[in-house]
Amino acid sequence: MSGSTYGNIFKITTWGESHGKAVGVVVDGCPAGINLSENDIQKFLDRRKPGQSKYTTQRNEDDKVELLSGIFEGKTTGSPISMIVHNKDHHSADYSQIASYYRPGHADYTFDEKYGFRDYRGGGRSSGRETIGRVAGGAIASKILEQLNISILTYSKAIGNIEIDYNNFNPSEINNNSLYMPDHSAAVRAGELLKEKMAEKDSVGGIIECLIDGMPAGIGEPVFEKLDANLAKAVMSIGAVKGIEIGDGFAVSHSTGSDNNDGFRSENGKIFKTANHAGGILGGISDGSQIVLRAAVKPTPSIAKTQSTVTKSGENIDVNIKGRHDPIIVPRAVVVVESMTAITLVDMLFNAMTSRMDKIIEFWKNTNI
Amino acid sequence: MSGSTYGNIFKITTWGESHGKAVGVVVDGCPAGINLSENDIQKFLDRRKPGQSKYTTQRNEDDKVELLSGIFEGKTTGSPISMIVHNKDHHSADYSQIASYYRPGHADYTFDEKYGFRDYRGGGRSSGRETIGRVAGGAIASKILEQLNISILTYSKAIGNIEIDYNNFNPSEINNNSLYMPDHSAAVRAGELLKEKMAEKDSVGGIIECLIDGMPAGIGEPVFEKLDANLAKAVMSIGAVKGIEIGDGFAVSHSTGSDNNDGFRSENGKIFKTANHAGGILGGISDGSQIVLRAAVKPTPSIAKTQSTVTKSGENIDVNIKGRHDPIIVPRAVVVVESMTAITLVDMLFNAMTSRMDKIIEFWKNTNI
Amino acid sequence: MSGSTYGNIFKITTWGESHGKAVGVVVDGCPAGINLSENDIQKFLDRRKPGQSKYTTQRNEDDKVELLSGIFEGKTTGSPISMIVHNKDHHSADYSQIASYYRPGHADYTFDEKYGFRDYRGGGRSSGRETIGRVAGGAIASKILEQLNISILTYSKAIGNIEIDYNNFNPSEINNNSLYMPDHSAAVRAGELLKEKMAEKDSVGGIIECLIDGMPAGIGEPVFEKLDANLAKAVMSIGAVKGIEIGDGFAVSHSTGSDNNDGFRSENGKIFKTANHAGGILGGISDGSQIVLRAAVKPTPSIAKTQSTVTKSGENIDVNIKGRHDPIIVPRAVVVVESMTAITLVDMLFNAMTSRMDKIIEFWKNTNI
Amino acid sequence: MSGSTYGNIFKITTWGESHGKAVGVVVDGCPAGINLSENDIQKFLDRRKPGQSKYTTQRNEDDKVELLSGIFEGKTTGSPISMIVHNKDHHSADYSQIASYYRPGHADYTFDEKYGFRDYRGGGRSSGRETIGRVAGGAIASKILEQLNISILTYSKAIGNIEIDYNNFNPSEINNNSLYMPDHSAAVRAGELLKEKMAEKDSVGGIIECLIDGMPAGIGEPVFEKLDANLAKAVMSIGAVKGIEIGDGFAVSHSTGSDNNDGFRSENGKIFKTANHAGGILGGISDGSQIVLRAAVKPTPSIAKTQSTVTKSGENIDVNIKGRHDPIIVPRAVVVVESMTAITLVDMLFNAMTSRMDKIIEFWKNTNI
Repeated sequence: MSGSTYGNIFKITTWGESHGKAVGVVVDGCPAGINLSENDIQKFLDRRKPGQSKYTTQRNEDDKVELLSGIFEGKTTGSPISMIVHNKDHHSADYSQIASYYRPGHADYTFDEKYGFRDYRGGGRSSGRETIGRVAGGAIASKILEQLNISILTYSKAIGNIEIDYNNFNPSEINNNSLYMPDHSAAVRAGELLKEKMAEKDSVGGIIECLIDGMPAGIGEPVFEKLDANLAKAVMSIGAVKGIEIGDGFAVSHSTGSDNNDGFRSENGKIFKTANHAGGILGGISDGSQIVLRAAVKPTPSIAKTQSTVTKSGENIDVNIKGRHDPIIVPRAVVVVESMTAITLVDMLFNAMTSRMDKIIEFWKNTNI
Repeated sequence: MSGSTYGNIFKITTWGESHGKAVGVVVDGCPAGINLSENDIQKFLDRRKPGQSKYTTQRNEDDKVELLSGIFEGKTTGSPISMIVHNKDHHSADYSQIASYYRPGHADYTFDEKYGFRDYRGGGRSSGRETIGRVAGGAIASKILEQLNISILTYSKAIGNIEIDYNNFNPSEINNNSLYMPDHSAAVRAGELLKEKMAEKDSVGGIIECLIDGMPAGIGEPVFEKLDANLAKAVMSIGAVKGIEIGDGFAVSHSTGSDNNDGFRSENGKIFKTANHAGGILGGISDGSQIVLRAAVKPTPSIAKTQSTVTKSGENIDVNIKGRHDPIIVPRAVVVVESMTAITLVDMLFNAMTSRMDKIIEFWKNTNI
Repeated sequence: MSGSTYGNIFKITTWGESHGKAVGVVVDGCPAGINLSENDIQKFLDRRKPGQSKYTTQRNEDDKVELLSGIFEGKTTGSPISMIVHNKDHHSADYSQIASYYRPGHADYTFDEKYGFRDYRGGGRSSGRETIGRVAGGAIASKILEQLNISILTYSKAIGNIEIDYNNFNPSEINNNSLYMPDHSAAVRAGELLKEKMAEKDSVGGIIECLIDGMPAGIGEPVFEKLDANLAKAVMSIGAVKGIEIGDGFAVSHSTGSDNNDGFRSENGKIFKTANHAGGILGGISDGSQIVLRAAVKPTPSIAKTQSTVTKSGENIDVNIKGRHDPIIVPRAVVVVESMTAITLVDMLFNAMTSRMDKIIEFWKNTNI
Repeated sequence: MSGSTYGNIFKITTWGESHGKAVGVVVDGCPAGINLSENDIQKFLDRRKPGQSKYTTQRNEDDKVELLSGIFEGKTTGSPISMIVHNKDHHSADYSQIASYYRPGHADYTFDEKYGFRDYRGGGRSSGRETIGRVAGGAIASKILEQLNISILTYSKAIGNIEIDYNNFNPSEINNNSLYMPDHSAAVRAGELLKEKMAEKDSVGGIIECLIDGMPAGIGEPVFEKLDANLAKAVMSIGAVKGIEIGDGFAVSHSTGSDNNDGFRSENGKIFKTANHAGGILGGISDGSQIVLRAAVKPTPSIAKTQSTVTKSGENIDVNIKGRHDPIIVPRAVVVVESMTAITLVDMLFNAMTSRMDKIIEFWKNTNI
């Protein structure tokens, strides 16, 4: 089955393997008339580019995006937007060794079981490079959200057991440290932890948090295309994500109704909530307050520490994964979570435009066609 | 937008409101030739029926299902299966009061914002009664899984802060207590907690856990239709669910690669994993081991305790939700989580049948048509 | 695979067999706030009801529709609308005979090949009764089009070789004759033809034509979800339809560019076309002029004349189909073609609301949520 | 809305404009293990390449395809296959003139109405170059069909009023003449007709016919995803197609049941039909006999003859479309019809694999995963 397309009205289709010629994405259903340049996309891609800090892989890729279609005179035309990033640093020889065995924590085994064989070079389709297409698509979705005054703030909430302290929360700090943490002190301590783990030839996991402001109330389609359901799918589809929460998330399990319910109040004719345990979503529909989601990201599976595994032919062996790998996935995944979130929000906003007949009549009346 | 259909090849479409004439579901894409009776469905529905214990609402519904189509001579025909459950105990008068204000923690406000008005009787479409269609569909999906030797065990893992102890884990205990806990002692203590909360006119949340055995490796469609991504959507679409985890879930955030990676080993030509932190899914594809998922369920929002809210016209008021409400959603949601899981597994199994050309050729060769 | 759902944003899911308990439809994605009563639906269903003329089957069904969900205080709520029509006259005994052989021109053989067995009672799912769900859905779509000032006129253009004469074209005549022809004289002659064919124990085919006025320009989504492509699918999915044309249709094959191209002209600032060979669709997008489509409908396959066929076990036999069958499908299919057209137009109108960023910004600005 | 993706399990997503940098397609859902080379694709593309005869445009494009992903060691991997064809001969200057007015018979006007502006260079997205992606996808679908022993023969049945004579039908002649007609004499006469029309600065339409052999019975999903319904959509989505027929098509309108019904017979335990008026599809499901479809193609809208039109600002003008245009679309569209047909057949075959529970059980039993 085809699994490389996401979205209903606003849709992305990604393609490409770690060590193939290129990776890319087709963004379809993008409205006409948006100013869009390669630079808009590049800014997003640069946030996930390798080799930016001592904690990320030194693979030599500049990840330059090329816009191939759907733009005319600097504006989107409504036609599909095809984007490509050529793979430069793909020395397949380096990976010939892993062809024969299954790396623990990777999809090598499951790809072989599913497809009968696999493109083993750098993980092939299951490599993190697959997310380039998501991020390029997310950059366009973000341009659309921007015009609707909706903003997304995404950052590392935890690196291993180092969590940010909300008393130190400073959004402008996020891009000041290579770990994308909004708390300078936590970032410093997390850096220490990573150095330690690298010395141990090991890796750590973490948590990414995403705050969405400006989302109008009324977005989400009961009962299966709820806003939270689609956000959960979008974010869980990112490699290494093992959990997803909205609002108080798992903490609701030991809360009470009286604590967890957000009261309503009205002031000057405007209705608002007095708390936001729900994380901005009630009954699967946005309630107009900040949307809060969190994703749990597992530790990098590629570690230099000795691990036990089997070869394709069933021989039990010990392996030390060669090459220089990130000791942490979280920082580079921040923009991927933001991108999948942005794409989902745009798609859900578009889907919500037909909820009421009065607004539909008004829409078509205002149209001179 | 239409949000009441779920699935790609095996599909359910649910309909109905809490206090309308009936609720129901159309199951489409069910293969022909499965023995299916109303009793198969009823067994599932009875697990979510109200009034079964002192902890659930006393609404008087026997929830008898009627099969309307898609069955001939006791077997599925391949045509859509329509099922209906008539609402009996729907005294709309009881609910006329809540028409005017927004119940905290409910979807009253968001429905009004989305649709301009709402069917306020018992929560209308956002009522828990909506899940009857899911469970009827899940019963059919479970029949299919049964024939493929795949089984799902679902239970309450936590009620408030009372968690099961895996040392006491006893599957046969699950149906012995009205809280569906596999640990007798935990069930007793959870019962005490619920009595306490009821006395306080309050409610609690909890966690549902789901274990899937027998799933073949190779199921899940990278990169967006991954098995975990679809499970996350399916379960998050259930009202009151605020978080979803696979395998170690959020605990991976403070784990290390060396701890979190599941090693592979081979014995007598059979490959297996030496641990299951991944919860049976690697790279979004089942790896042949047990699939483990957990859902966080919020406390019942309808509580008798005084809460602050607003009327539709913006007046600030205090409310005490009348009527007798469950102090806990978890037990009745167990079968809903199982149903959404079963439907997702069937759909993903069907989608995985075209992964390899050799198997497709074999399939059509074996067919005498 | 599930094939009983049609549409992307505005969606119908039909179910039911000829001799099951009932047939029905779930309409999902219907905007909130539309006044809708059972009478609105019944008017449409009455146009396809059997037993209305001497040319249609005398099966005794009043086809009373019941609205089960999605309506509150007389208005659509945005939730799925479930509708049911109970089968009354279903004496299965009458059909036991055809269980053993394949009726020529019917789907008996293909259903057996596909599903391994079939519900043979009255054709089961492949019966014309399946279209009740389509028509009930079409009635709702028509209510939406009405509010957008879009109208559809559908009629029999040809019954066998008797074609209407456009010089005699009179829309108000359509409902004056049981053949739904807009030309009185043609209807009289067609009636004679049918009497003749009934005497010969035979049947005839015909052509249905559909004219759509008021459709704004700009509807249709290149390159696969074009307006004409979706209309073609919608209409071709109706049993007995074997061909579909837009505008000049097959006649374009022997036309020239200079004849077939519709010129543009402008008057008082309004652009219009000077001809309409294109049938209102250019490049798969509505051009603002009248949309014209035609469907070729085959003769009723159930005829009393002797035919040769085989039994399920492969015995060659001669059969005379018993029972009183319509000698013509066309008149009762008129409202089915109109319904599938209406559903498609609504869905495509909704899909077209996100073509331009400026209109999307305006839409969300006008929204006070 | 996104309209550039086609298919459910086997899916293509096309992109690109006539005078953009490139055109391309992503094929998703292609099973793993198929030998596939650029040459396999190129053979298909060469059948629609411009400049191959005196009747087609002299645009200088060699249309060389490049495979970018989804192939490893010469075989499909199950991951999306991205293909690109760079546009070489795209002198935008040539087209600056048509920016200001609407060419009759083209989509210039409807694109402007839909999107607010358009990429006017060579028709942009509405150009025939868009079909390159379809044909590249069709080449892959054809490889799959080949392995299932299903073949498609497609050819020009009529060029203007010159129809092939089935007494002269010779499949091997199809590739011997630049008009792809299976009747040498008709091809010669059609060539004369085209010379005549070119002299008159005019163009003609025609009919494409498609014969499918080897399709198993049982393919097609009632009631909306019928085989004929999907073929109708697939073929009608091709630019310039204005009608589509299955089997006897529009001729059924003046046929009788006794003539139109295909009788069944059995010989040596094998059931077959004694005629094929149905064109291989009964009740929307393949019946095992040859599938026959026809598409009506309009005359090339770009003609040098003087035509009346308007400018974007509403000025009435006369135009003579400059440049050398094909006087006939049919021959180059033959492979496009074949491609859309092949893609549809593969998708429907895959969808039909879950019709029966017994076959599903067998499939998963045979699987060692």
